[in-house]
Amino acid sequence: MRVLGVDPGLTRCGIGVVDGGPGLPPRAVEVMVVRTPADAPLAERLLQIAVRVEAMMDRHQPDTVAIERVFSQHNVRTVMGTAQASGVVALAAARRGIPVAWHTPSEVKAAVSGHGNADKAQVTAMITRLLKLPEAPKPADAADALALALCHLWRSPMQSRLAAAAAAAPAVSVPRGRMSR
Amino acid sequence: MRVLGVDPGLTRCGIGVVDGGPGLPPRAVEVMVVRTPADAPLAERLLQIAVRVEAMMDRHQPDTVAIERVFSQHNVRTVMGTAQASGVVALAAARRGIPVAWHTPSEVKAAVSGHGNADKAQVTAMITRLLKLPEAPKPADAADALALALCHLWRSPMQSRLAAAAAAAPAVSVPRGRMSR
Repeated sequence: MRVLGVDPGLTRCGIGVVDGGPGLPPRAVEVMVVRTPADAPLAERLLQIAVRVEAMMDRHQPDTVAIERVFSQHNVRTVMGTAQASGVVALAAARRGIPVAWHTPSEVKAAVSGHGNADKAQVTAMITRLLKLPEAPKPADAADALALALCHLWRSPMQSRLAAAAAAAPAVSVPRGRMSR
Repeated sequence: MRVLGVDPGLTRCGIGVVDGGPGLPPRAVEVMVVRTPADAPLAERLLQIAVRVEAMMDRHQPDTVAIERVFSQHNVRTVMGTAQASGVVALAAARRGIPVAWHTPSEVKAAVSGHGNADKAQVTAMITRLLKLPEAPKPADAADALALALCHLWRSPMQSRLAAAAAAAPAVSVPRGRMSR
């Protein structure tokens, strides 16, 4: 299974491709960080990101695209740009019929480091070790993109098993009249 | 001048095209509201919006695309989706080389109604009158999209004049040594 992970952003957008599967060590295929100039028009910046991420999708034909789910708890202006960047990445995947999965930052941190509030340095160190990289990916957005992909590789079998178990479980019916007791 | 205005949103995305120019009454060319199902995957919803807005762009060849600038003061979940929708619209314009202008809700309200805190009913009533429409556009997202386009038509000549005036003004130079006095 091949996953393209994206840490969306206007100034720096991390894109990383990781291969993996049951019993196989995960392997980094390619990672890049797209930078766009802060003084360029917003639409132009989104286009630059779209062109680069589409080229990565077409080059590596991922089975899934995993994107960081954006929250608006931080700087409002930054978050809007990040959401817009994540939108154009999701659109590029949808145009190619590639399913998109969204993971929160804490899900990603928990998946690669064991706890949801790991800092950037810890995530980078774990990604370097887990993917047996010769050196730490830089900037942090590159490591984050690989972490997104790895998180999806590791979470998706579990989610599939949970979904299968839920589907196989007998439907629970509550007899009328018992509801309020 | 032809402007395509967009009131971005995942559930309802308003798209309206208005023609206008100096001394000409503005004229509505087409307006539509794209609806996407709340239970569809996010990437699929963004694709549906992109396909419809691109068809409008290709059909009407606007000179400018005017999009509502999103703020995150409201419901966080809604705002993220709205930002993502606005991103795919801006991307579609950038791919076609059409300049994108962003206007805030209060700029739009002020442009069409004279004050920045007009309610939806007032905006709809003004748009219906200003564009001499046979009936009020529904839902409100349709009126908002037309208001975006009209706002841009009326603001852009003023902005162009201001930019020209700024460019024509002699540069102000401060002699060295006077800076801190």
